[in-house]
Amino acid sequence: MAQVQRMSRLMIKTLRDDPADAETLNHKLLVRAGYVRRTAAGIWSWLPLGKKVLENVTRVVREEMDAIGGQEVLLPALLPKEAYEASGRYDEYGDLLFRLQDRKGADYLLGPTHEEIFTQVVKDMCSSYKDLPVILYQIQTKYRDEARPRAGVLRGREFQMKDSYSFDTTDEGLAEAYQLHRAAYIRIFERLGLDHRVVSAVSGAMGGSASEEFLAPAPAGEDTFVDCPNCDYAANTEAVTYKVTAVADAAGAVEELDTPDTPTIESLAAHLGVPASATLKNLLIKVDGEIVAVGVPGDREVDMGKLGEHLAPAVVELVTAEDFVERPDLVRGYVGPQGLEKVRYIADPRVAAGTAWITGANKEGKHAKNVVAGRDFEVDDYLDVVVVEAGDPCPNCGTGLQVDRAIEIGHIFQLGRKYADIFSLDVLGQQGKPVRVTMGSYGIGVSRAVAALAEQTADDKGLCWPREIAPADVHVVAAGKALQTELALDVSEKLNAAGLRVLVDDRAGVSPGVKFTDSELIGVPKILVAGRRSAEGVLELKDRRTGEREELTVDEAIARLTDRG
Amino acid sequence: MAQVQRMSRLMIKTLRDDPADAETLNHKLLVRAGYVRRTAAGIWSWLPLGKKVLENVTRVVREEMDAIGGQEVLLPALLPKEAYEASGRYDEYGDLLFRLQDRKGADYLLGPTHEEIFTQVVKDMCSSYKDLPVILYQIQTKYRDEARPRAGVLRGREFQMKDSYSFDTTDEGLAEAYQLHRAAYIRIFERLGLDHRVVSAVSGAMGGSASEEFLAPAPAGEDTFVDCPNCDYAANTEAVTYKVTAVADAAGAVEELDTPDTPTIESLAAHLGVPASATLKNLLIKVDGEIVAVGVPGDREVDMGKLGEHLAPAVVELVTAEDFVERPDLVRGYVGPQGLEKVRYIADPRVAAGTAWITGANKEGKHAKNVVAGRDFEVDDYLDVVVVEAGDPCPNCGTGLQVDRAIEIGHIFQLGRKYADIFSLDVLGQQGKPVRVTMGSYGIGVSRAVAALAEQTADDKGLCWPREIAPADVHVVAAGKALQTELALDVSEKLNAAGLRVLVDDRAGVSPGVKFTDSELIGVPKILVAGRRSAEGVLELKDRRTGEREELTVDEAIARLTDRG
Repeated sequence: MAQVQRMSRLMIKTLRDDPADAETLNHKLLVRAGYVRRTAAGIWSWLPLGKKVLENVTRVVREEMDAIGGQEVLLPALLPKEAYEASGRYDEYGDLLFRLQDRKGADYLLGPTHEEIFTQVVKDMCSSYKDLPVILYQIQTKYRDEARPRAGVLRGREFQMKDSYSFDTTDEGLAEAYQLHRAAYIRIFERLGLDHRVVSAVSGAMGGSASEEFLAPAPAGEDTFVDCPNCDYAANTEAVTYKVTAVADAAGAVEELDTPDTPTIESLAAHLGVPASATLKNLLIKVDGEIVAVGVPGDREVDMGKLGEHLAPAVVELVTAEDFVERPDLVRGYVGPQGLEKVRYIADPRVAAGTAWITGANKEGKHAKNVVAGRDFEVDDYLDVVVVEAGDPCPNCGTGLQVDRAIEIGHIFQLGRKYADIFSLDVLGQQGKPVRVTMGSYGIGVSRAVAALAEQTADDKGLCWPREIAPADVHVVAAGKALQTELALDVSEKLNAAGLRVLVDDRAGVSPGVKFTDSELIGVPKILVAGRRSAEGVLELKDRRTGEREELTVDEAIARLTDRG
Repeated sequence: MAQVQRMSRLMIKTLRDDPADAETLNHKLLVRAGYVRRTAAGIWSWLPLGKKVLENVTRVVREEMDAIGGQEVLLPALLPKEAYEASGRYDEYGDLLFRLQDRKGADYLLGPTHEEIFTQVVKDMCSSYKDLPVILYQIQTKYRDEARPRAGVLRGREFQMKDSYSFDTTDEGLAEAYQLHRAAYIRIFERLGLDHRVVSAVSGAMGGSASEEFLAPAPAGEDTFVDCPNCDYAANTEAVTYKVTAVADAAGAVEELDTPDTPTIESLAAHLGVPASATLKNLLIKVDGEIVAVGVPGDREVDMGKLGEHLAPAVVELVTAEDFVERPDLVRGYVGPQGLEKVRYIADPRVAAGTAWITGANKEGKHAKNVVAGRDFEVDDYLDVVVVEAGDPCPNCGTGLQVDRAIEIGHIFQLGRKYADIFSLDVLGQQGKPVRVTMGSYGIGVSRAVAALAEQTADDKGLCWPREIAPADVHVVAAGKALQTELALDVSEKLNAAGLRVLVDDRAGVSPGVKFTDSELIGVPKILVAGRRSAEGVLELKDRRTGEREELTVDEAIARLTDRG
């Protein structure tokens, strides 16, 4: 059984002030409470209390991965480049990859993720459909040379990750492995006490269930996502779809307007005295060299990333001044879909059939009003391409969406046969013929989960861990006098004997005030103080989160704390 | 609780033949039994069974480190070069260090051991004598770019290691931390079931207790060590000392011998018809540029490594032909200590005062006999510099020593203030003045311990693990028929419910013979077979090591296996 952890012997140093370079809550508090220290940019040392928290998260992840039949392995972090050259990722990763050579000049990399190596292992170990399915996982140090490591252990260059990979012979098998992971991840984040959302990582057009992200809402997060305050809809902002609602009656005939010097939406709206939302903005782009127009309401921005994903693998570029020279039919600043010939027209679903717009008249200084979609112009493809904004309607229930920041703590992905194709991973099928294997890839940021938990649970006094993750179940504080220390150590041993993990502040020469402040900063969920009434054998039990206090005898305190119900 | 591990779902592939490149037992068997696979030279993947064994060793190490008050941390493996430049090891390590640059061109290394970084952490965290002593440890991936990675996981370039570091203000504190580690290491290796010896790593002249190695005798080992078949003496060959025994009566007067063309010991001994051991060989070396003579019996070799360690930090080189040109008093091939002036004379303890020798007469073609140490020449320093040989007398009891091969599985070292001096690691002492900290460094090769265990415990059938380390407590084998599989799965669940770790071979379409061979190769200590008498509910329990078998009912088998006494 673990021993009582005495702070007089623990390597810990708490700081009153935030580190100068810390911007996020987890960074400030994990450093101030002595959980971690920075060794280099984005490279962290986990000190005794931090290591305990990291280990607690690891244990939960391991138990739930084992529960879905995951088999734990440990692959190297130092990897020969050949496999990553085969997949193309040796170059694709660019500067994100740490590369090195050994003494013989052979090229290696530090693994950012292990799809290639797992594919090779399974190719070596499995030869028949009878050997599948398998789910393999590891909890391991990963490396990514981030351009801007930030937010403490939230975005490090060396970090702990659980990565797993499923191998199946059928699409149904892959879907099942994916659902097993999805359920396991939800259990993991629930046990960790992490508020989280499962969101589609790509738009419905690419297959809704192919990839989902697990997000932990937190202001320090680098991701934005939308969620509905009314129903359970949540999505990555890039995956939000717009549901067309009822369209008003058709407007009158198209009418040309004289609008000199109004090449921008702002100048046009001001000139006409209409809201920007009444105008139709037409962005010209080149898709694999061909000019394409994209129409969105004048008050919305095109999300180029989203557009690129929709049109991938085609190359999307903005048009240049030179492109206009070659196309006199395209009047810069005054383009409208109604006169465009030989130009593919993509539009946001908001530009639904029957909607009427003020848009360019394809003549210098002229616009047109009452231009109706489906009547005056045709849309070749409807794609969700606008930047999502707070208040956009929920595609499920129509309620105005919220846009929030979050930390990506997990990602599950149906890879399919991409890597099996690269490495020719086949097994002998039931019919005696080779079957290509299909694969899923699933990750949880273990060190990142610690940061996310710190962000979500901390308050203005310091860290405030859920019990399963906390470095101890109870923090016993000896106010200072010999009698109090004696009582604190005695009750600590008794709590330890009852199966609790105990941290006891038995430091000599440290004032009670400093000890109380430290106990709140460190964030163990229950604080038991041997103070004023120690001579009577009475202690004060404080709930770290609520601040509720009650006075208890030793036996009462033990009974209260061991009641895990 | 862990689940029953079904081989039908386990990723395992056993091989009948040894891998072509495998020379050592652990390499052959760990690969054949599906515990590990090679990813690159000296870089290994731990597969499900291998990971379990690795984890079991890790658990034992962690428990015993915690028991001596060690605090677990996790420092990075990717380290900035500055700290290692400060210590000089960035260059000293030479090609053994993996070096790399990040995207900004800053220099990093992959940590081979962490003295520098721990010193910096303690400097940051501890400021008073009250903060010490501390023992910090981590179980972590280490990197060394070995020129010849070999023997499977025994000598890898990426490997798992437990390294710990003690910090004290006094020499007595360091000695105590050292003894705590020594005792913990003995408990660890005993629990692992590793036959081991604790040997002095450096000669007594440097302080006997400053450094000891833990060796696991095994033919695959790269270290040689001596041990006494009579008493408990054991030592690294470089640390063996020679105890001078009684010396015979003095010989007659020095007598010159005509010995033309005898510049070597062999030619001299043949010419005179005496054993080489009757002659005194004088090796000339340069120590920091100064010529020094080293005398050893003619039948022994000088261990240059040992000599270098004795004389460190002086630079030791062999003399060249040019050196003789400048010193006509040194007659090449005919040097004797009796006529040497202004030359420091170092001798092996075997050249004890009173011993008589045939040696060079310092004249071309001449030797001298009856040259007596202490009478005809003086020895400036006695140093143990000869290569130890089997049969050399035990320094304790005089019995002829054995020379054996072993694997270094642990090393404990009183570093003293070397790193504290480099990084100015002081704490405020009891007297209010800064006190320089003293430090110990202690390592256990965790992945290497797995290899050593495999080497020591395997037999001609395969691996044969001690129970605490085995991937399961019992390997249940279903001979093949449906009834047998049913019984095997049933008893497996019952054993699991009784707290045992169970591996069950429930594979369909695999012959009983293959299953039995696999179970012996895999090496779980107890094998329970559901075979011929399954219909009666009778199983056969086999001891993997002894081969003893007995027939038992299900209840008897459970009772037998759960009796851990």
